[in-house]
Amino acid sequence: MPRSTRRQFLARTVPATTALWSAPTFASTLQTVRDGVQGERIASRMETIARIGATPEGGGSRTAGSDADLAARETFSGWLREAGLAVRTDLAGNLIGHLPGADSSLPPLLTGSHLDSVPEGGNFDGVIGSIAALEAAAVIAASGAPLRHPLEVAVFFNEENGKTGSRALAGEVTQEEMDLPVYGGLTLGQALARVGGSPERITEAALEPGHYAGFVELHIEQGPTLATEGIEIGVVQGIVGIRRFHVRVSGFANHAGTTAMGIRRDALVTAGRFLVAVHEETQSWPGRQVATVGRIEAHPGAPNVIPGAVDLSLEIRDLEMETIEALYQRFQELGRELARRNQTEITFEPYYLSRAAPCDPVFMNTVEAAANDLGFSNLRLPSGAGHDAQSIAVLAPVGMIFVPSRDGISHSPREFTSVADTTNGTRVLLETLRRLDGVLG
Amino acid sequence: MPRSTRRQFLARTVPATTALWSAPTFASTLQTVRDGVQGERIASRMETIARIGATPEGGGSRTAGSDADLAARETFSGWLREAGLAVRTDLAGNLIGHLPGADSSLPPLLTGSHLDSVPEGGNFDGVIGSIAALEAAAVIAASGAPLRHPLEVAVFFNEENGKTGSRALAGEVTQEEMDLPVYGGLTLGQALARVGGSPERITEAALEPGHYAGFVELHIEQGPTLATEGIEIGVVQGIVGIRRFHVRVSGFANHAGTTAMGIRRDALVTAGRFLVAVHEETQSWPGRQVATVGRIEAHPGAPNVIPGAVDLSLEIRDLEMETIEALYQRFQELGRELARRNQTEITFEPYYLSRAAPCDPVFMNTVEAAANDLGFSNLRLPSGAGHDAQSIAVLAPVGMIFVPSRDGISHSPREFTSVADTTNGTRVLLETLRRLDGVLG
Repeated sequence: MPRSTRRQFLARTVPATTALWSAPTFASTLQTVRDGVQGERIASRMETIARIGATPEGGGSRTAGSDADLAARETFSGWLREAGLAVRTDLAGNLIGHLPGADSSLPPLLTGSHLDSVPEGGNFDGVIGSIAALEAAAVIAASGAPLRHPLEVAVFFNEENGKTGSRALAGEVTQEEMDLPVYGGLTLGQALARVGGSPERITEAALEPGHYAGFVELHIEQGPTLATEGIEIGVVQGIVGIRRFHVRVSGFANHAGTTAMGIRRDALVTAGRFLVAVHEETQSWPGRQVATVGRIEAHPGAPNVIPGAVDLSLEIRDLEMETIEALYQRFQELGRELARRNQTEITFEPYYLSRAAPCDPVFMNTVEAAANDLGFSNLRLPSGAGHDAQSIAVLAPVGMIFVPSRDGISHSPREFTSVADTTNGTRVLLETLRRLDGVLG
Repeated sequence: MPRSTRRQFLARTVPATTALWSAPTFASTLQTVRDGVQGERIASRMETIARIGATPEGGGSRTAGSDADLAARETFSGWLREAGLAVRTDLAGNLIGHLPGADSSLPPLLTGSHLDSVPEGGNFDGVIGSIAALEAAAVIAASGAPLRHPLEVAVFFNEENGKTGSRALAGEVTQEEMDLPVYGGLTLGQALARVGGSPERITEAALEPGHYAGFVELHIEQGPTLATEGIEIGVVQGIVGIRRFHVRVSGFANHAGTTAMGIRRDALVTAGRFLVAVHEETQSWPGRQVATVGRIEAHPGAPNVIPGAVDLSLEIRDLEMETIEALYQRFQELGRELARRNQTEITFEPYYLSRAAPCDPVFMNTVEAAANDLGFSNLRLPSGAGHDAQSIAVLAPVGMIFVPSRDGISHSPREFTSVADTTNGTRVLLETLRRLDGVLG
């Protein structure tokens, strides 16, 4: 891209800073971005990680603090050092590679993801974003000319079971959490100690807002949209907010043989009507909101007893917290209306809230322009799943890049993203970092 | 009732036998039935049994083969002997009291019920029918004039966990069942041995059809119909048949955040629609059939995963096996129709069948006439619950008398039937036995 074109792009999308062209920065062009990012190296590293903790089904189990997690981090540390980055593990167990920038007064740009998996998970979720971040840093380091900003590559600790590493940076992890169980029979504190973090000093891992200039994470979509529509790059609009509720329907348990249909106060009939209404109502609203009943239990739960009570989980997600709230209000109305029909009652108890984390408009525009200029089809879409970027969003502006997930499957050995899609995504990540380096203070 | 009226009643309802008035039989009249049956004695015996295995909630735990069950049977044996009956325990653990009849060539008339309870159950289910049978036998014995038929009073073994005692008489219990667990950590064989039965020879307990002239059981309704309508006596039309099915809905499990509403193959949405349809369809048919989904489980059962599969129980009961079959066919159609709507599948696997046991028309007419002549309001109704009478029905004609259950509650410490209702029921039982004694061969 000729300098004039680049000026034009930057003027179109983000406010230029006065320091923009003054420093001797990373001198890549779109062509060097294309050439520098090596698909074979990415593929070979994906293979190497996949072999660690491999399961017979072709997936991987690298739960946080497990032997496989430790081995994967060790391997990754070697690659960071090989690429010329200084490596450290912080108090929260995040593995950080550091590459100095031309202007040491600037806060670092951060990129990365995670290497831990769910039990019996796949080999792409988190791994792709970690290896892409390493690849981007390696290309910059190999070019001999740094970015203006320092660049840090993070492998966050325990994304899959609570985003512990990234939430600790945001100051959201408490000392008490250290006693919670995680996958594999460890407490969170034990898992943290195993990767070299400090359970005792976890709260000291918190960073001040402004510590980082910004964070960009590449990740598999974990949904079918890009794969189904044949689109190469997802420009993430943000990470949806989540509210979860315990819903209880109370009726009256009675003998299934002796209680006529007309006088039953069957809690499961109400629960059935309610969960169908949740599904249909959510689908009928314009927008991309989702609502799910994933768990249900009828009490006493015998084939010959009319259920006297039913417990359900209810989860609502959307980019707008207001939409979540409006849906929740509507579900309460519908629930009460349906419960009245057979003399049952319904109650809602909120138990989980995760605020929506919108991506920064500058970051979205930059990702989009990078994808366009590199010739990749792209689409703006929300992230329905949680990510480390969501935690970092309270410290710094964030952006996310999605690559397609075959059949939208994740957390499964069937999880798959092609080398081509991963390489494309890595090029967009590198180009995005290069452009943000130019515009961010 | 003057003899001419009685002849008229008998002519109207059952064929008279030639031996009808020839033997020197129990000479009670309606008035002696009223006077002979003593409410205080019934109440005091109910109290005595209730104290055995009493729970803090005011209910009772006398599971088959438990210490409390043994103590209750021992107490009951004493009462049988006191009333002049010969007592034995058969191979199937049934406690039997025998009172000779005037004509030793006739098969015995049988009455009784059970003393065992579910864990944390009540003090009326089974106990009322046992004590009423004892009371009827005691009145006859005390009158000094026997029935024409021998009279036997049975306390059946383990009604609550498989009707073992009565099913063994019908030849329906297998040797293998002896290894099954029952309440209280015993095997069925161990429980049987504890009450004096023989697990090794259980199959020899079977009787030939014709062994008994007939069986009449008094029982609490275990439903709300009589109590709600203020009716004193239920004339039972039969014990409903039962079919139970494992129903499985298969969809596709997926991430609840990343899978748009429109493309979900949510097995729980289908299951919800199906169970509501079962309820509404069953209610819309004329008749007293019932259908119940009492158990439901969604897989994997996490708040943030769209259910990929759901398991449901489905139970259908009716007096007519044809109605059960027709409902099952309709539920399969509805299920498949609903499953198609969101690309899911539904399968049905039958796992339990209990054939309907109609009461003998002669017995129903006799119970009804006895209630009418004693001045008790009465109503014909099916038994939605299973009873020992159901097993005995393959050996002999059976009849059942229901007394009201407060709020229709059973298998609970809240189970209650008044002394007045119990005494009324016992009088109807005695009068029914007296009349059947006259008409049965």
